[in-house]
Amino acid sequence: MTSTLFRGGSFVTWADEPVEALVVEDGRVAWTGTAASAPATDEVLHLSGRCVLPGFVDSHTHLVFGGDRAEEFEARITGTAYAAGGIRTTVAATRAASTQELLARAQRLAHEALRSGTTTLEVKSGYGLTVEDERRCLEVARAITPHATFLGAHVAPDGDAAVYTSLVAGEMLDACAPLATAVDAFCEEGAFDVDQCREVLSAGKERGLGVHVHANQLRPGPGVQLAAELGALSADHCTHLSEADIQTLRDADVVATLVPGAEFSTRSPYAPARRLLDAGVLVALATDCNPGTSFTTSIPFVIALACRELGMTPQEAVLAATLGGATALGQDDIGHLRVGARADLVVLEAPSPTWLAYRPGVDLVHSVFKDGVAVR
Amino acid sequence: MTSTLFRGGSFVTWADEPVEALVVEDGRVAWTGTAASAPATDEVLHLSGRCVLPGFVDSHTHLVFGGDRAEEFEARITGTAYAAGGIRTTVAATRAASTQELLARAQRLAHEALRSGTTTLEVKSGYGLTVEDERRCLEVARAITPHATFLGAHVAPDGDAAVYTSLVAGEMLDACAPLATAVDAFCEEGAFDVDQCREVLSAGKERGLGVHVHANQLRPGPGVQLAAELGALSADHCTHLSEADIQTLRDADVVATLVPGAEFSTRSPYAPARRLLDAGVLVALATDCNPGTSFTTSIPFVIALACRELGMTPQEAVLAATLGGATALGQDDIGHLRVGARADLVVLEAPSPTWLAYRPGVDLVHSVFKDGVAVR
Repeated sequence: MTSTLFRGGSFVTWADEPVEALVVEDGRVAWTGTAASAPATDEVLHLSGRCVLPGFVDSHTHLVFGGDRAEEFEARITGTAYAAGGIRTTVAATRAASTQELLARAQRLAHEALRSGTTTLEVKSGYGLTVEDERRCLEVARAITPHATFLGAHVAPDGDAAVYTSLVAGEMLDACAPLATAVDAFCEEGAFDVDQCREVLSAGKERGLGVHVHANQLRPGPGVQLAAELGALSADHCTHLSEADIQTLRDADVVATLVPGAEFSTRSPYAPARRLLDAGVLVALATDCNPGTSFTTSIPFVIALACRELGMTPQEAVLAATLGGATALGQDDIGHLRVGARADLVVLEAPSPTWLAYRPGVDLVHSVFKDGVAVR
Repeated sequence: MTSTLFRGGSFVTWADEPVEALVVEDGRVAWTGTAASAPATDEVLHLSGRCVLPGFVDSHTHLVFGGDRAEEFEARITGTAYAAGGIRTTVAATRAASTQELLARAQRLAHEALRSGTTTLEVKSGYGLTVEDERRCLEVARAITPHATFLGAHVAPDGDAAVYTSLVAGEMLDACAPLATAVDAFCEEGAFDVDQCREVLSAGKERGLGVHVHANQLRPGPGVQLAAELGALSADHCTHLSEADIQTLRDADVVATLVPGAEFSTRSPYAPARRLLDAGVLVALATDCNPGTSFTTSIPFVIALACRELGMTPQEAVLAATLGGATALGQDDIGHLRVGARADLVVLEAPSPTWLAYRPGVDLVHSVFKDGVAVR
C-alpha cells in the first residue's frame, strides 16, 4: 500500500513530542517526527501551512429517526404555544418509516458529519421502543458505524415505565444486544428512575456491552452516581452536577460527555465544563444530533460553542472532541495521531485549531481522511 | 437570454401573495405566481421540495485587511492576559500588505460568503487610516463589490482624534469619495465623539455618499441620535439603546443593523432586537466580518444566533438578513424576489428557512444564483 508523508503544516497529535511531519501507511499513522528526519515515502502531501487534527469522534448521536421537529423547534424558539410531542413525535415517525428510509436519512447525516470532520460516530437507537423497531434502528446504526448503542430506555412509550423497563431489560435486550456495542438509559424524572436504569444497564453490561448514561440533564439526580457504580464509559449531558458528582466522575474515570448544541437549541443552561476540567475529569464534546433538541452534525460548531459558552480553551475543546470522544467509546486507536493510530485526519484551512472558534459558522475543513483515504 | 422556471419547492419572496413558481430571465425575476399559471420557459428547475430565499445581503463587513488576530482571540476567550493592539494591530498589518495581497484575501472571503448564500456584500475601509492606505483599501473593496464604505473615522491612528478628524473630512475624503458609495464613523468613547463624527459624516453626505454610523456599541451614547439627525441609512451595532433611541430610529426610518457574531465572539451583551422589532424599527442582520471581533462570513450562523440569542423568529431573522440589509444599503432591487428584483437566490437543502436556525452549524446551502447565474 502507498505510504504518504504529510508535511509543511502544523500537527495536533496528542503525542508528547511536537510533530512536524507524519507518515500514513496501510491506513495507520506509521511514523511521526521532525521534518528533517522524515523517511522516504511513495507520496508527499504538502500542507501549505494548514493544520492537521485527529478526525473528530462524535460519541453521542441519535441519527436514526423518521420525520423532523422543525415546527416544535420554531414554537420553542419563538415562545409560541405548541402541543409538543417531544421524543414521542419522533417515535411515531420512526415506526412509520421503512428501514430503507431510516437508513437513507442516517447515511445522509453521517455523510454530512464526515464532511465536517467527524471520522467516528456513535449512533443510538431509542426512537423505536418496540422490540422490532429498536432492532431495526440498531440494524441501521450498524450499517453506518461500528459504535451502535441500544437506548431502549429512552422514554416509556405507554407511560408505564416499570412494565416497559422489564421489556427493555429482557426481550428487547435479547433482540438488540447482538447488534449493539453499548447500552444507554435516560436517567431523569419523567423518563426512568435510578433503579429502572440500573436494571437495564446491568443487564446490558452482563452481555458485555459498554455502558453510557444520560445523566443529570434537566436537574440534579442520581445518574452520574449510577454511571460510576456501573463502571460506565461516560455520563452524558452532565448539566446539573454537585461537587460530589464531579469528584465521583474523576475518581471513577467516567468521561463527562457534554453536548452544548442541545443547550444552544433548547436555550438551557450550559454544562459546568470549567468545574469538570479544573477537577481533572476527562471531558468529551459531542453533537447529540437528534431532530428534537440538537439537530446539528457539526463538531466545529460544538467546539465554537464550547469556547464561547463553556469556558473551554480551543485546545481543551479539540481534545474533548477527539481523544475525549474516543475514550468515551473505549477506543484507543482513534482520537489521536500517535504512531499506530488509525489515519483518521482532518486538515483545516487554517494554521491552528483555534480558528474553529475564531471563525464560527465558517466551513474550515479543507480535507478529511478516513483510514488513510481522502473522503473529502 | 434563457428563461428558467423554478418550481416544486417553497419560496420566500417578501411579496404579498404566496408564490409557488418563479421565472428568471435576463438576470431578473420576470414572473411569480401559482404553479398552474406558470408560463412556458426555456428551462425548468425542479426544486424537489427545497426552499428558495432572496440572496443574503450582508450590509456590514470589514473584509479588507492584512494579518489576523487569532492570538488576541484566544487570549480573550481563555481570559489570558495579552497586550491586545485591537484595531491598530490590523492597521499595521494592512499597511504592510500589498494591494494584491489585500485583494486576494478579500476575494477569498467574498467567495466564502457567496458560498454561504451572501449575494450582496457591503465592504468598509478603516484599516488603512492614511490617505493612501484608505484609498487603496477602497480600491480593493470596489473590486469585489459596488457597496464600498469609507470608514477613515474608525480609530485615530496617532491618538489625536481632533487633528485626525480634519484629515479624514478633508484630504482623505477627497481621495476616497470617488471610490465609495457611503461613509461611516465609529461614534464611541475612545474612538470619535459626536462632533467629530458629524464633521466626517456631513462632509461625506455633501459629496452624495450614504451615511452609516457605528453607534451605541460599547455603551449608551449619541450615535443613534446622530444617525437620525443626518438621515443615515443605518445605525450599526445598537447594543446599548434607550427608549428614546428606539423611538428615534423608528421615526427617522433608520435601519438598526445588528451584528450578533461580534457579540458571540467578544462575549458581549446582545443587542435588544426584540425591543426594536416590537417598536417597529426595521432591523438588518449582518456579519460585521473582521479579524478582531467577528471573523465570520456566515449569514446562516448569524441567523441561528439571532433566533437563539436575540429572540428573533426565523422569519424575522431571514427578513433582516435580506430585505433589512438591502434597505440599509439603500437598494430596492435586492433582498426580495418580487418581479423586477435581481435574480439573486439561495436554494436551501431544507423545506423552510426555519431550518437555518433548527440546524445550526450545518451547511444547508444547496445552490446560489447571482443575477440569475448559478455560482454554487
